[in-house]
Amino acid sequence: MEQRTKEDFYSRIIKDYNFTLDHSGVSGDRIASRLYEISKIGTTDSGGANRTGYSIEEKKAKELVIGWMKAAGMTITIDGAGNVFGKIEGRDESPSVVSGSHVDSVPNGGHFDGTLGVIAALEVVESWNSNKHIPKNPFEIVIFSDEEGSRFRSGLIGSRAFMGQIDQKELANLRDEQGKTFNEVIVEYGLEFEDFKNMKNNKDIMNFVEVHIEQGKILEKVNQPVGIVSGIAGPAWLEVTFIGEAGHAGNTPMPGRKDPLIASAIFIESIEKFPQIVSNTAVATIGKLDVYPNGVNVIAQDVQLTVDIRDIHENTRDKLLELIYKEAENIAKSRDIDVNINYNSSIKPLPIQKRFQDKLAESISKFEVSPTYIPSGAGHDAMVLGKEFPVAMLFVRSKDGISHNPNEWSSLNDCVMAVHILRDYIESIMKETE
Amino acid sequence: MEQRTKEDFYSRIIKDYNFTLDHSGVSGDRIASRLYEISKIGTTDSGGANRTGYSIEEKKAKELVIGWMKAAGMTITIDGAGNVFGKIEGRDESPSVVSGSHVDSVPNGGHFDGTLGVIAALEVVESWNSNKHIPKNPFEIVIFSDEEGSRFRSGLIGSRAFMGQIDQKELANLRDEQGKTFNEVIVEYGLEFEDFKNMKNNKDIMNFVEVHIEQGKILEKVNQPVGIVSGIAGPAWLEVTFIGEAGHAGNTPMPGRKDPLIASAIFIESIEKFPQIVSNTAVATIGKLDVYPNGVNVIAQDVQLTVDIRDIHENTRDKLLELIYKEAENIAKSRDIDVNINYNSSIKPLPIQKRFQDKLAESISKFEVSPTYIPSGAGHDAMVLGKEFPVAMLFVRSKDGISHNPNEWSSLNDCVMAVHILRDYIESIMKETE
Repeated sequence: MEQRTKEDFYSRIIKDYNFTLDHSGVSGDRIASRLYEISKIGTTDSGGANRTGYSIEEKKAKELVIGWMKAAGMTITIDGAGNVFGKIEGRDESPSVVSGSHVDSVPNGGHFDGTLGVIAALEVVESWNSNKHIPKNPFEIVIFSDEEGSRFRSGLIGSRAFMGQIDQKELANLRDEQGKTFNEVIVEYGLEFEDFKNMKNNKDIMNFVEVHIEQGKILEKVNQPVGIVSGIAGPAWLEVTFIGEAGHAGNTPMPGRKDPLIASAIFIESIEKFPQIVSNTAVATIGKLDVYPNGVNVIAQDVQLTVDIRDIHENTRDKLLELIYKEAENIAKSRDIDVNINYNSSIKPLPIQKRFQDKLAESISKFEVSPTYIPSGAGHDAMVLGKEFPVAMLFVRSKDGISHNPNEWSSLNDCVMAVHILRDYIESIMKETE
Repeated sequence: MEQRTKEDFYSRIIKDYNFTLDHSGVSGDRIASRLYEISKIGTTDSGGANRTGYSIEEKKAKELVIGWMKAAGMTITIDGAGNVFGKIEGRDESPSVVSGSHVDSVPNGGHFDGTLGVIAALEVVESWNSNKHIPKNPFEIVIFSDEEGSRFRSGLIGSRAFMGQIDQKELANLRDEQGKTFNEVIVEYGLEFEDFKNMKNNKDIMNFVEVHIEQGKILEKVNQPVGIVSGIAGPAWLEVTFIGEAGHAGNTPMPGRKDPLIASAIFIESIEKFPQIVSNTAVATIGKLDVYPNGVNVIAQDVQLTVDIRDIHENTRDKLLELIYKEAENIAKSRDIDVNINYNSSIKPLPIQKRFQDKLAESISKFEVSPTYIPSGAGHDAMVLGKEFPVAMLFVRSKDGISHNPNEWSSLNDCVMAVHILRDYIESIMKETE
C-alpha cells in the first residue's frame, strides 16, 4: 500500500512541479513530502484517506505535524477539544494572526481537504525561518479537531468547542455507528470530558486566515490557481411534500388527476430562475426527492423533496427561501393538491469583510494572478471563527471540483502559489497594525 | 374473525339493498350470501382476502363454487391448469357463450375483484333455473386460475394456459418467495405438470363476457351502476434515465449545471399534453422515479423514471410512445445532458368489437341505465381470450375506485343490476344466431 501511495501520490504531485516557484524560502518538495507523509496515515484500499475525527489516525497526523512545528521552533499547546496550536512569537505582543485548518478526513477522502491548510501555514513559518524573518505579531498555526464530523454525523466540533459554541446536550447525544458515546471516544482519545465541555478560548485574534481547496470548478473554469472567498454560505432547507391522489395508471383518465409528481416537476423547473433574482452568489438545488408509493402503474400519492438554498448573505438567502416557499404554495393551489412545507434556516451565512478580501486581492495581484471571488457553498472552520473574529479564506483550484474522494487533487504549483500569497497576506495584515 | 366479517361484510352489503331489484329469478340476498361465503376463505386480519393463485384458499373457493354449480345442475370439468368449467346444455349444440372470471386475490385484496364475475354468471343460471328457461346455446361458467399472479409475479396464468399462450420456459423459471418452483406448487395443488404444459383448449366460443369491478372512478363520477368496456389497454413502458453531472449543491454556480432532475421535471410536465393528441382513451403516467445519489446537498447524477403508456388501440398507444420517446431525447439535447431510453411494448391492447359493445348498450338501455364507455387500463382474463374469441366486458361501479385492498367495494344494487344486464346480453347474443 505504501509503495502504491508513494508512486501514486508523491511522484504524481511532484512530477509537474515548476521549480521556479521555489523562492523566498518556500519549498515545493517540502510541501509535497509533508502532504505525502500525512497521506500515509489511514490510507484506504482505493488510495484515499481515512482519518475520521478523534480517531487514532487523526491523532497520529496531529503528532506528525507537531513534530514539524517543534522543529520549526514553535511552542505547542493543545486545548480541551484536542485542537493543536503551534505558536511563534512576534516582535510585538498580541493580537496574533492565526492560520490553519484540519487533518481529519471523511472515511474515504482525499489528501488535500484540510491538510493543505495546515501544511501551507507551516510553510509560511519555514519560509520566515529560512530568511531569519521575525513576524511583527505572534503567529499561530491551528489544527482543529473533527471538522468533517463523519463519525458522529456532526461537524466543526473542534472549532465550535474553541469558540464555546457547543452545548453539553448536543455532546451528550452524539453516538458513533458502533454506539460509542462522544464522551467514551474523547476519553479513549486522551482528553478529559470536563475540560471539553467547559471550553472557551481567551485568544486575541487579529485575523484567522484559512487556505482550503475549492471543492468546486470555478477556478478551473477561469484558469486561476487561487481565489478569494467572498463569504461562506449558510444552507437553509425547505422540505416540501406535495400530496395528491393515488390511482391506477391505467384506470384513471388524464382529466381530473391529482398527480403530485407533476406539481413537483413544475416546482423543480421553477427553482432555476429564482437564485439570480436575489443575487449572483445564491444557489438553490433539489438533490433529494422521493415518490410514494413509487410504483410503475400507480399515480403517486405523495412526493417529498428538499430544496437546499444557499447564499453568503442572510437577507438574500432568506429572500430566496421565501420566494421558493411561495412558489410551492402557488403551484399546489394551481394544481388543486395539498402541500406541506417545513424549513430550517438556523445556520447563518458568513459574509467575509471586504477589507480582508481586498487585502487578499492585493497579495494575489503581486503574483500576477487575477483576483477571482468565490462564494463558499460548503462550511469551514473559518465560518465558525468568523462569528467573533475577522476571517479570510483563500481557495486553491480543485481538479474537476472533486472532493471527499480519493481522486481529490490540486496541483503542487497551485499549492505553492497559495503559500506565497498566504505569507504576503499575513505580513501585510500585521503591517497594518504598525 | 368470522364474526367480524359477518358483521362487516354481509350485513354491510345487504343493508342498503333495494329489494325491488329482486325479479326475473335474480336474488340479491343469494349474491350477497355467496360473496360472503367466499370472503370467509383466506380472510386477512384487516378483513381482506388472501387467496393467491394455486393456494389452498383459491382451491377451497373453487370447490365452494363447484358445489353451487352442481346444485344448479351444471356439469363440471377441470382442465390441466385447474380452470373450472360449469356447463349447462342449450336447446342447440355449440358454440357456447362463456362467462366468468377468477376467485384468486392479491395477498390482502378485496371481496369483489374476480369473485363478482363468477357469482354474477352463476346467478344468471339460477335465474334461468327459477324460470325453467333453457338457453338457446350451451352456457359455461369459467373460474380461471391465478389471474392476479401475486405468488409468482406473473399473472393471467389460467387463461393464458387455456389459450395455449404460456411457453414451457416461462413456467420453468417461475419461483415463489419461498423459492418453490411453479412445478412443485402445481403438483402440491393436485395438477400434473405435463398436462399443464401441453394445454390448448378446443372450445368453440361464440362470446366470452366478463363482469368485473371497474377499479376506477369513472362510473362513480357519471353516477351509473355499470359501464361498457370499450377496450383493454395493453401497457407499454418507457424507461428513461437522464444522466447529468453531480456536484456540491453549495459550490456549483447555477449557470453551467447539468442537473438531470431539472431535465426530468421538464419531461414529467410535458407528458400531460400528449395523450389527448393521440386519442381520448390514452393515458401516460410517471409513478416511479429514482434520483441518484439522492442527497440533500448533492446535484443529482442520474434520474431514472418509467413512463407507463396505455391505450386500447395499438396504433395510438405506439404513436404516444413515440411522441414521448422523442420528447425525452429533445429535452436531454436542449439541457445538454445524456439520456438512455428503453421500451417494452410487447403486450398488445385489445379493442373490443363494436358489435358486442352495441349489444351490451342495448341490454343496458332496457334497464334505464345510460351506456358509459370505459377503456380498461388494467388487464383481465377477457384480454387473453380476446386474441382468439369475441369478448365483451361489463364494469361495475367501484367505491372511490379502490381495489386490491380490503376497502374495495361495490354496492349490491350495482352488482344485481349487472346480473340482469348480463342475463339479457347473453340471451340476446344467443338469439342473434337464430
